[in-house]
Amino acid sequence: MTAEQFATRHIGPGPDDERRMLEVVGHGSIDELMDAAIPEVIRWHGTLDLPDPATEAETIAELRALAARNTVAVSMIGLGYHGTHTPAVIRRNVLEDPAWYTAYTPYQPEISQGRLEALLNFQTMVTDLTGLATANASMLDEGTAAAEAMTLARRASKSRSAVYVVDADALPQTIAVITSRAEPLGIDVRVLDVERDELPTEFFGLHLQYPGASGAVRDHGALVEAAHAVGALVTVAADLLALTLLRAPGEIGADIAAGTTQRFGVPMAFGGPHAGYLAVRSGLERMLPGRLVGVSRDADGNPAYRLALQTREQHIRREKATSNICTAQVLLAVMAGMYAVYHGPDGLRNIAERTHAMAARLAAGLRAGGVDVDDVAFFDTVTATVPGRAGEVVAAAAAERGVNLRLVDADRVGVSCDETTTVAHLAAVWAAFGVPAFDGAVDAALPADLARTTDFLTHPVFRSHHSETAMLRYLRRLSDFDYALDRGMIPLGSCTMKLNATTEMEPVSWAEFAHIHPFAPDAQTAGYREMIGQLESWLAEVTGYDAVSVQPNAGSQGELAGLLAIRAWHRSRGEAHRDVCLIPSSAHGTNAASAVMAGMRVVVVACDDDGNVDLVDLDAKIDKHRDALAAIMVTYPSTHGVYETGIASLCAKVHDAGGQVYVDGANLNALVGFAKPGKFGADVSHLNLHKTFCIPHGGGGPGVGPVAVRAHLAPFLPGDPLGAHVDATPAISAAKYGSAGILPIPWAYLRMMGAEGLTRATGVAVLAANYVAARLRGHFPVLYAGNKGLVAHECILDLRPLTKATGVSVDDVAKRLIDYGFHAPTMSFPVAGTLMVEPTESEDLAELDRFCDAMIAIRAEIDQVGSGQWPAGDNPLANAPHTAAMVSGDEWAHPYPRSVGAYPAGVDRAGKYWPPVRRIDGAYGDRNLVCSCPSPEAFED
Amino acid sequence: MTAEQFATRHIGPGPDDERRMLEVVGHGSIDELMDAAIPEVIRWHGTLDLPDPATEAETIAELRALAARNTVAVSMIGLGYHGTHTPAVIRRNVLEDPAWYTAYTPYQPEISQGRLEALLNFQTMVTDLTGLATANASMLDEGTAAAEAMTLARRASKSRSAVYVVDADALPQTIAVITSRAEPLGIDVRVLDVERDELPTEFFGLHLQYPGASGAVRDHGALVEAAHAVGALVTVAADLLALTLLRAPGEIGADIAAGTTQRFGVPMAFGGPHAGYLAVRSGLERMLPGRLVGVSRDADGNPAYRLALQTREQHIRREKATSNICTAQVLLAVMAGMYAVYHGPDGLRNIAERTHAMAARLAAGLRAGGVDVDDVAFFDTVTATVPGRAGEVVAAAAAERGVNLRLVDADRVGVSCDETTTVAHLAAVWAAFGVPAFDGAVDAALPADLARTTDFLTHPVFRSHHSETAMLRYLRRLSDFDYALDRGMIPLGSCTMKLNATTEMEPVSWAEFAHIHPFAPDAQTAGYREMIGQLESWLAEVTGYDAVSVQPNAGSQGELAGLLAIRAWHRSRGEAHRDVCLIPSSAHGTNAASAVMAGMRVVVVACDDDGNVDLVDLDAKIDKHRDALAAIMVTYPSTHGVYETGIASLCAKVHDAGGQVYVDGANLNALVGFAKPGKFGADVSHLNLHKTFCIPHGGGGPGVGPVAVRAHLAPFLPGDPLGAHVDATPAISAAKYGSAGILPIPWAYLRMMGAEGLTRATGVAVLAANYVAARLRGHFPVLYAGNKGLVAHECILDLRPLTKATGVSVDDVAKRLIDYGFHAPTMSFPVAGTLMVEPTESEDLAELDRFCDAMIAIRAEIDQVGSGQWPAGDNPLANAPHTAAMVSGDEWAHPYPRSVGAYPAGVDRAGKYWPPVRRIDGAYGDRNLVCSCPSPEAFED
Repeated sequence: MTAEQFATRHIGPGPDDERRMLEVVGHGSIDELMDAAIPEVIRWHGTLDLPDPATEAETIAELRALAARNTVAVSMIGLGYHGTHTPAVIRRNVLEDPAWYTAYTPYQPEISQGRLEALLNFQTMVTDLTGLATANASMLDEGTAAAEAMTLARRASKSRSAVYVVDADALPQTIAVITSRAEPLGIDVRVLDVERDELPTEFFGLHLQYPGASGAVRDHGALVEAAHAVGALVTVAADLLALTLLRAPGEIGADIAAGTTQRFGVPMAFGGPHAGYLAVRSGLERMLPGRLVGVSRDADGNPAYRLALQTREQHIRREKATSNICTAQVLLAVMAGMYAVYHGPDGLRNIAERTHAMAARLAAGLRAGGVDVDDVAFFDTVTATVPGRAGEVVAAAAAERGVNLRLVDADRVGVSCDETTTVAHLAAVWAAFGVPAFDGAVDAALPADLARTTDFLTHPVFRSHHSETAMLRYLRRLSDFDYALDRGMIPLGSCTMKLNATTEMEPVSWAEFAHIHPFAPDAQTAGYREMIGQLESWLAEVTGYDAVSVQPNAGSQGELAGLLAIRAWHRSRGEAHRDVCLIPSSAHGTNAASAVMAGMRVVVVACDDDGNVDLVDLDAKIDKHRDALAAIMVTYPSTHGVYETGIASLCAKVHDAGGQVYVDGANLNALVGFAKPGKFGADVSHLNLHKTFCIPHGGGGPGVGPVAVRAHLAPFLPGDPLGAHVDATPAISAAKYGSAGILPIPWAYLRMMGAEGLTRATGVAVLAANYVAARLRGHFPVLYAGNKGLVAHECILDLRPLTKATGVSVDDVAKRLIDYGFHAPTMSFPVAGTLMVEPTESEDLAELDRFCDAMIAIRAEIDQVGSGQWPAGDNPLANAPHTAAMVSGDEWAHPYPRSVGAYPAGVDRAGKYWPPVRRIDGAYGDRNLVCSCPSPEAFED
Repeated sequence: MTAEQFATRHIGPGPDDERRMLEVVGHGSIDELMDAAIPEVIRWHGTLDLPDPATEAETIAELRALAARNTVAVSMIGLGYHGTHTPAVIRRNVLEDPAWYTAYTPYQPEISQGRLEALLNFQTMVTDLTGLATANASMLDEGTAAAEAMTLARRASKSRSAVYVVDADALPQTIAVITSRAEPLGIDVRVLDVERDELPTEFFGLHLQYPGASGAVRDHGALVEAAHAVGALVTVAADLLALTLLRAPGEIGADIAAGTTQRFGVPMAFGGPHAGYLAVRSGLERMLPGRLVGVSRDADGNPAYRLALQTREQHIRREKATSNICTAQVLLAVMAGMYAVYHGPDGLRNIAERTHAMAARLAAGLRAGGVDVDDVAFFDTVTATVPGRAGEVVAAAAAERGVNLRLVDADRVGVSCDETTTVAHLAAVWAAFGVPAFDGAVDAALPADLARTTDFLTHPVFRSHHSETAMLRYLRRLSDFDYALDRGMIPLGSCTMKLNATTEMEPVSWAEFAHIHPFAPDAQTAGYREMIGQLESWLAEVTGYDAVSVQPNAGSQGELAGLLAIRAWHRSRGEAHRDVCLIPSSAHGTNAASAVMAGMRVVVVACDDDGNVDLVDLDAKIDKHRDALAAIMVTYPSTHGVYETGIASLCAKVHDAGGQVYVDGANLNALVGFAKPGKFGADVSHLNLHKTFCIPHGGGGPGVGPVAVRAHLAPFLPGDPLGAHVDATPAISAAKYGSAGILPIPWAYLRMMGAEGLTRATGVAVLAANYVAARLRGHFPVLYAGNKGLVAHECILDLRPLTKATGVSVDDVAKRLIDYGFHAPTMSFPVAGTLMVEPTESEDLAELDRFCDAMIAIRAEIDQVGSGQWPAGDNPLANAPHTAAMVSGDEWAHPYPRSVGAYPAGVDRAGKYWPPVRRIDGAYGDRNLVCSCPSPEAFED
């Protein structure tokens, strides 16, 4: 009478598949395989203490019950989070469409043209509205965008000052994030009333809010001039909806604009995820952190999109990097960009005007009732003074009328209008203030001299898709360009592209999770907080740590949070001088960048020929830096996909020298149920909920990177951005629980898998990697292995000998895999000239074999190049990927038949995925940087 | 401060588009155009009395409030409607995916291979489980499937008897539908206790329920033999889930099986929609009504699917037709088939065993508590006797424990288990009966001698997609094969393929609409009934009638209901002899078939050269049949797409002769807001909510065909199938409100459009048709026109002169349109050799122009054939559609370049839709009828 277990749906191979895979790998059972693969020294032999697995239906019922304990109020708190109507066509066909949400970061641009175009729309929207030259493809939220703006300003400023001036009317959570980020970097943040206080004589940057948190819209022109006069750069944190009516930051001379696009159709979701933005004036574009989409051309000379300037940041700069951002909020940026596409400039302006009219009416009503309202120009937010009564008004509005207002202080209340505000909401606010309803005439309260006079969103894409039919087709067209998990395997090493189950995803759309303001009263968020508390405790159990914070909204932020906890701990013990962070040479570049951001010095430890940390060199480095040793950062299993046997010894050596051990949780999918970092010697890890715990990659975000620590570090976990003490509990994200809105996904995954399901998933993931290694070893050398020749959850295929012999590159193989219907594995990381393959537990044997067969067939093609049968410059590998237009061209002058280009062995003809462009010339695009929508004429034949 | 109106999203052309279109059509405004197009004699000049339009957000809020007034109880009523877990991957990627739900009926098989394969899975599932040779692609529900089985039996039986025997343990609503259908056909239905009562000496058919409504599982073998002995055919109405454990109907000699697949993952939805099924033994397949998918081959000889035996029914048989079914429940059949694909045979058997185990435990507990439970074998349902207490037990269960049981009569209670039943539900039932909880040992109650011994679902498709990842990709692969509204225009005459807005669709998934049993107590369905009442009143206002019933779950059923109302009215007046139904020669075949089913004689009225009803011939026919005249059925605007000016006169003539006027509502999209059939002379209409009122076509169903009548016919509208009086208020569908679950769609459409939006939509639809006619008239003759040369909402392009001159056929043009990225218009209806184009109001000017440009380009291609530049048998038209495999083949021996085949002028290269197969040979498939999944080997190159 047992109901079906979700684990059988999540895990691809069934019992028959598993038997055949074990045969090939040469082990009798998964247990036996894992016993052989995992060093006993780290092995954990218990059973995870998690609730018994629930079925999909039971899980949905439990989440419904949790959701029911949240209260969806009318949100008029503002502070950068606003009610918005997500157009249903966008919700269903982006947020709820696996073609969008299961896509990977667009590193393979030929099969990512859809989301790259969508991101280009986003960038164009931001640059148009801010009046700046270049915007990136989104930031994690407004707070982190503002912090990145600060460090960008510091790099770009000619001033030698360490002072950064912040407008006191900036969002409080932004001030908290900026301050938290500034401290380890030695930046001196001064929060000033920039209208009244005198500016310091020297400073390198100035952060202004436009409109301010109070709602005030001020002309910042003079401040910008004053800042420029001392060599400082100016960041304007601007509301994009307001910018449809107000003069753009670029028009008053701002160097940088930062902010959020949440109110462009992305639900508040208790704080996230949504897309922050960052834009810069001309001349600063090469200093932009994060992802930047640009236009280049393909092998036919047609316009084609790809990530621009990919080499400028942590990918290669490592310890010289100035930002550790390595992802974006792609799915949410796509939504926000599409909101602009759907509404167009006139629609956005109408929404802004209606929002403003509501605020103006609200203010007029309050004033008519005798309430003192700040006598300033405003857009959507007014601040009212009710001496001594503010708490009472806010409480009455929430409890009696279901409206959340902002409690500024004991005397002042903030009220913010948005797209969803109605006259009934105004009436509720008036009633809460105790003033009569008002229906008199109202004047606009926008300052005439700041009125926008310039056009925006003039590109045809913002004027062509205004009917739902047209919008639907545009979304379909773009998603069809892309290859995501709904088409086939994405065997990316270290990225764990596993199933994102629908049952995990559905609750994300529910109003009770989607429409909660991050600063809503606790009484309205009991369900959310219980869910998050359970998730944190389950993650602690899985990892063996004592405490977890889900605040970091990306892996990079989790790294920073973990290192800041180590830093704070050392300081709490009077060892502030400990600032050396050891990092193995094989580490992901983000590790080093994070260490720099945490105020540490990076010292590189060598790796031996087997890819393991060189323990001799480790000893040497520890000896050299013993007194200054703060931490070591290692990835486990290693970035080479191996369970290193020396890990316990490594931990002991670092601890003996007074350092802390940071284990990067990127490869946790190889450990769950079999080993716990918190138990085998580590002090802190960040996890990637978008890897091991099933949050979809969203085409390059959202991610969630919780930080997990042992008890001694728990006091130093991230704090509430509205009340953070910078030294001990920094604000890592703008909202206390980060991207809370997608936490139902890992909650559901853990709830449905249970201890047995999770453990089995790990075993099958390791089995699958070893199966691929076993099948391909005869065709490509597998670079590293641990115990008994076994890999962990991924394997590295060495292309270098073949490249040397034939000239066929890793790139050629990656692009040729597209012709075979695959996304390429990870290219040239951690070892240049190799491919790293992580199949995950979700791929069944048929798909694993399809991949292995394709790789073996490609090997045979390489041999045909090597033997001279095909010339080096003109063969199916060099010309890959083949588009339908190419293989059906009237001319065909290649030394192989069209069918070999189009339909290599085994490819399904009827269902073949065709890339929309040929191979893209990345260097051309970097030399000729274009980061906004190209004109339609550019695409003409 | 007005918020955005939905009408601007629904209607494709914006103000600029509209101006340009009016210029081409030569009218100054839409009002002026409509004044010119619509005959004043039918014109209605009022404003529709509908609520002011709501925004999308307001509409969702109102529907949420209505939904909240429904109560989702645990449903244990049974009677053919069961709780089921819709796999989330199927809900999201079929039911909620526009690629599936916006598709049209697969008349163009080359661009419908995805849903045809899905339907073949459905057919294979039904034949495997029932043990019969051939199943069709679904029926409207179990009741109508059983009624079709009855008429099929009558056609096939050698018996001359008019007696049809029905098992008294059949579902009561099935008995009601059968009886309602039998009466006008002169069939004598005898409801007997087939276990005890003696069978009549002669009868043509026998209907058995397996398991019975009471839950009893009986061996019907002897009854089947007895029926066959007198030449009768046997229909077994079987539960497919039970058939995973029980001997199949085909194995006991049944000729026909009928039933529902609702419990295969399709929510109950207060009665529908879901897919009924109908299967027959070998030899009867060519008599199957409805849609039948078969396997044929394409121009390359590869297997390809298409609708088989399309010519056997009402399409050409008209007044000789024996069924009026012209659609299916494709979307729901796809879901049910995919449920079987996802679970596979073992999974289905597990679900059945668990369901049975729950029922067995339930019975054991009741018996242990002293309750008398029927002493019979059962599968999922038990009937308990509690003398005099049944009402009390049922009421207590519902009110106190949230569990709905079946009140059989004052003494008996039925309790049905299903996939969703839990031990907690059993405990609630025991408590309602007042017996203690039970956890003793339980034996299975299945009869050993009826145990299933044969395999089922042995085809690999049922064994390959059991992980969610594999299932997701299979769904994506199939949907990618198809062309639906999410790719581009589907300009089908008379089918009104307009926007199916997401906001209209979203509520369909809500639990409060999805999980309501059709026989749930009224107290639990207040929201549903209020919503339906409003919808009926709005539809009455729009059409000018006095009363509406939404019960008919397809247009064909609405026709039957309307004609039965006319029939009952005549009989109520003592004019039972009136049985002649006049039907113009241009009418859709379904009209005549419906008349036959309503017991009428069809008399055809000629049309004149302009396509209008020939009023002279009408006079003659009325004169000839004056005393017997029952009705006339006309379509308005005519099937020729013209506002006939003679309509008022026609109505008057028929009324004068004592007849009633039936206006087919298929073309209502040309009338809404401008004319009301109920006001210009008609007595009854059926509407097509899946045409004018935005229910998506779902790839060939669901449809909803409400019947609307003037007051004198209102007493004869469909009645409650659980309480219907056959003579006056027939049971048209098995559930009182038919396909209630999709009624939020038209409700939302009407709520959001309001009077002004609806009227504007009609105007733009007529403008669009006239725009297309104006642009294409110079290239293809436009066949018919009304006032001032204007068409209504569609236009007919005459290909016959070109076909005669060049040999290029309508079929060639339709297939060539695929190469241009379009679904073909309606082919050869109502006039052979023509194409009928209905653009609808939802297509914007860019799409209309893309279509016109394609047609003009095709005309130029036809000329190249005509001029001899391309040979008649080998040209881009004759070879259309071109697949990617064809145009990229290593050989190319055609007299035109590949690029002309693949990318005719203007086609978007990157986003081109490629059909998966070449032109399909329909005749071959009909000669070699294969209606279940072909072996994988058949697809090998």
